[in-house]
Amino acid sequence: MSLIVQKYGGTSVANVDRIKNVAARVKTQWQRGHRMVVVVSARSGVTNELIARARALHPTPDEREMDALLAVGEMETIALLSMALHAIGVPACSRTGARAGIFTDALHTRARIAKVTGGDIPQRLDEGKVVIVAGFQGVSDDTGEVTTLGRGGSDLTAIAVAAAVHADLCQIFTDVDGVYTADPRVVLDARKLPEIAYEEMLELASSGSKVMQARSVEFAQKYNVPFEVRSSFNDQPGTIVKNLDPRRAERANMEDAVIAGVALDRSQTRVTVSDLPDNAAAFSAVFNALGDAGLSVDMIIKNIGTGGRANLTFSVNTDALAATERVVGDVLARLGGGTVRSAGEVAKLSIVGVGMISHPGVAGTLFGALADAGVNCDLITTSEIKIAVAVDPAKADAAVRAVHAAFHLGGTAGAAAGAGAAAPAALSPESK
Amino acid sequence: MSLIVQKYGGTSVANVDRIKNVAARVKTQWQRGHRMVVVVSARSGVTNELIARARALHPTPDEREMDALLAVGEMETIALLSMALHAIGVPACSRTGARAGIFTDALHTRARIAKVTGGDIPQRLDEGKVVIVAGFQGVSDDTGEVTTLGRGGSDLTAIAVAAAVHADLCQIFTDVDGVYTADPRVVLDARKLPEIAYEEMLELASSGSKVMQARSVEFAQKYNVPFEVRSSFNDQPGTIVKNLDPRRAERANMEDAVIAGVALDRSQTRVTVSDLPDNAAAFSAVFNALGDAGLSVDMIIKNIGTGGRANLTFSVNTDALAATERVVGDVLARLGGGTVRSAGEVAKLSIVGVGMISHPGVAGTLFGALADAGVNCDLITTSEIKIAVAVDPAKADAAVRAVHAAFHLGGTAGAAAGAGAAAPAALSPESK
Repeated sequence: MSLIVQKYGGTSVANVDRIKNVAARVKTQWQRGHRMVVVVSARSGVTNELIARARALHPTPDEREMDALLAVGEMETIALLSMALHAIGVPACSRTGARAGIFTDALHTRARIAKVTGGDIPQRLDEGKVVIVAGFQGVSDDTGEVTTLGRGGSDLTAIAVAAAVHADLCQIFTDVDGVYTADPRVVLDARKLPEIAYEEMLELASSGSKVMQARSVEFAQKYNVPFEVRSSFNDQPGTIVKNLDPRRAERANMEDAVIAGVALDRSQTRVTVSDLPDNAAAFSAVFNALGDAGLSVDMIIKNIGTGGRANLTFSVNTDALAATERVVGDVLARLGGGTVRSAGEVAKLSIVGVGMISHPGVAGTLFGALADAGVNCDLITTSEIKIAVAVDPAKADAAVRAVHAAFHLGGTAGAAAGAGAAAPAALSPESK
Repeated sequence: MSLIVQKYGGTSVANVDRIKNVAARVKTQWQRGHRMVVVVSARSGVTNELIARARALHPTPDEREMDALLAVGEMETIALLSMALHAIGVPACSRTGARAGIFTDALHTRARIAKVTGGDIPQRLDEGKVVIVAGFQGVSDDTGEVTTLGRGGSDLTAIAVAAAVHADLCQIFTDVDGVYTADPRVVLDARKLPEIAYEEMLELASSGSKVMQARSVEFAQKYNVPFEVRSSFNDQPGTIVKNLDPRRAERANMEDAVIAGVALDRSQTRVTVSDLPDNAAAFSAVFNALGDAGLSVDMIIKNIGTGGRANLTFSVNTDALAATERVVGDVLARLGGGTVRSAGEVAKLSIVGVGMISHPGVAGTLFGALADAGVNCDLITTSEIKIAVAVDPAKADAAVRAVHAAFHLGGTAGAAAGAGAAAPAALSPESK
C-alpha cells in the first residue's frame, strides 16, 4: 500500500465525461488499497475565458485580482471531481491550495513556493478519503492573498504536495506518453525511456522538450521526489524521473546508454555583435544589459577581429530577437561603436546524459555523426551532462536522426542500427 | 461622508458591460467622498451552470462540495468588479466571504450566520479603497469549510457586513424600484413607499411579496440596520426599511396611513381535515406532524361537527399540498379516523401596517371594501400588524384594488379616491 499523488491537467478534466474518466482511474488505484492525493488543473478553456473577461474590463488587470480570479478555475474542478468520486462510491474531499498548506511569496501570477505543509491531508487520508487538491494556486504567507504559481503550476503543486506528504510516487498525467530518446515524429524508432535523471530532464526542458517546465523538475530534484510522466489517455507506464547515479550506470535496460536522448529546439536565432572593444568590460556590459532585461543568451562564441576589436556571436530565443537587438544597440551606443544584427535562425540540437561525464568520446561520436550526415555546426556549448550545437534548421531533422542512430538510442540495438542505415536515404533530399 | 454598503444581484453583474455599469455607479458615490463596501452575487446563469455540472456527476451532490463549488461564482465577480473599478481610477480590492469574516454554522447550502467580523475591511477603507465582498458565502467557524447562505444569501451578506462595519446606509440594488402599496401591475395607482418598518417588510415577505427573503429582514431588524431597496436600472430613490415607531405615526407623507400596503399570494391551497376527534391532542398531533415535516400552515379555522368530531381547514403553499396530504393522512391513520382533502386553491390577501394596532376599525374597513366589491372571504388570520383573508383567486385582483382604494393608498388622496371610484367599473366583469 503506497501513498500516490496524481496530477491531471486541463484537457484531462475538460468536461463532465472526462472528469468521470479521471474518477474511474483514481478509483482503480484506490481499490488496490493505495492512499491517494489528486491534483487537478482548471477545465481547459476556463482560464482563457477568465482572462478574456478580465482584459475586457482592464487592459492590464491588477495581478492580485488576477490571481483571485484565475484560482477560481481549479476551485471548480476540485469540487466536481470530488462529486464524481462520491458517485462511484469513493470517499473524497476537496482542498484549495490554501487549505492544502501551499504557502508562497507574494509575487502574484508567478508566485514561488515558500513552504508546503500539506494542511490536513494526512488526517483525511487516515480517514480513508481521496484528497483532491487545486493545482496552480497557493496563498501568500505574508498577506493571506490567493496566489498563482505561473506556467506549469499544477505540476509544481503535485510535486510539492508529494514532498510534503512523503508520497511514494507522484504521477504527472499529461498528453504525452513519457520522455523519448528523441521526438517520435522525427525519429521513427525513438524509444520511451523507462527512467531519466532529474538533471537530464532539466536539460531537456531547457533544450526544447515541452514535457514539463524546468521549475517543477528543479523542485523535485531539490526535495528528491521521484515522479512519473505518463499519458492520461492510456494505461502504459511512462517515464520515471529520479535521482540516477551516473557512475553506477543504473539506467535500466540500456547498454551503452551514456546518452538519454537527443533534443531539438527550432526557436533559436543567431545574433552577431561586430566591432566591439576586445575587453571584458565591453562583454560584461552587453551580457549584464541582456540579463537585466530578462533575456537569456546561449551558445556564445567570441572571435578576435582586427585593431583591438572583437566579434561576439550568440543565440537567443527567436521571440526575444527584437528586444535583444534593442538592448544591445543601446549598449553599443554607450560604448561608442559596434553593430548588432541577426545572423539567421538556427536549430539547437542537444544530447543529454548523466553518463557522459564518465564516458570520453561522446563529443567525437556526435561530431562524427553530424559530419557523416553532411550537417555543419558552428556554435557549441557544453555542460557536464549536455553538448549542444547550432545546426541549419533545414538539416535539423536529419541531424537528429543521425545522432540518435550513432548513439544506438533506437528501440533495440538491431533496430537502431537499421534505422541508422535507412536514415541517409530518407534524408538525402534535404541533407545534400 | 458616509459609509455605504451596496449590494448588486446577479442580473446587475451578468456580463462585462453590466459590471462596468456597476463600477460607474460605485464611482459616483465614491467621488462624493463616501466610504464604500460593495457586495455582489455570481453572474446570472453561472450558479445554474455549476449546479448542472454537479448534477451530471452526482444525482445528490455532497453539500460541502456543493458549497465549495457554488462559492466560485461570487469569487469570479468580485475580482472582475475590482478590475472594472481600477480601470476607471477607483482603488479597490476584493474579499471572499471568509476574508470578510463571515462566520457561519456548518449547515452547508443553507448556513446561518454565527458572527461577522468584517475582517480587514475597516483598514482597507481607511486606505481609501472600495472593498468588494463576495455575497452568499461564508466560512464555517468549526471546520474552516466554505459555506453558502442559501436563498437570498447575498442580501443577507450585505446587511450582515453593514452591521459589522457600522454602515450609515445599506443599499440593496435589485430589479424592482422599491416596495409598493400593492403590485403596480394589478393596481395602477400603487405608490412606492418612501419607508416601511421591518415588521411590515417581514409580513410582506411572508405574504407573497418577492422583494426580499424574510431572513435578511429579520437580521436587519435584529441588528437595527436600516437598508434601502432600490433599482439598479435607474437613479430613483427606493424604499427605506427601518425601525418605525407606530405610536408616533412617523411614516413620511402619508395621512391616514395606518396600512403600508396590500399583498397578494396566489400560491395557497385550502386543505380540509374532516371527522377529527374534537380534542387538543388530535389537533396537536396534526400540526406537530406538519411542523416536523417542515410544512407551514396558515389561516386555520376549526368547525365543530357532530358526535364529538370536528373539521379543520387551513391553507398551505400549493407546492406543499401533496406532502401535506401524505403527512396528515399518516396522522389520521394513527388516530383511527378522519379524512384529508384539498378544498381548492385560494389567494391570500394581506393588509400590513405597524399603525394598525393603534387604529381601531381597520378590520371593518377591510371587510367593508371586500363586501362592496362582491368578494367573499372565509379563512381569516390576524397579527398585531397584519390581517390576511383567503379569497377566490378569480376575484383576487379586484379585491386588491378595492382594498387599496378603501385605505386611500393611491398616488395622492385625490388620485386614490379617483382610482377607488373607477375601480368598480374596471372590476365589474369578474366581481359581479
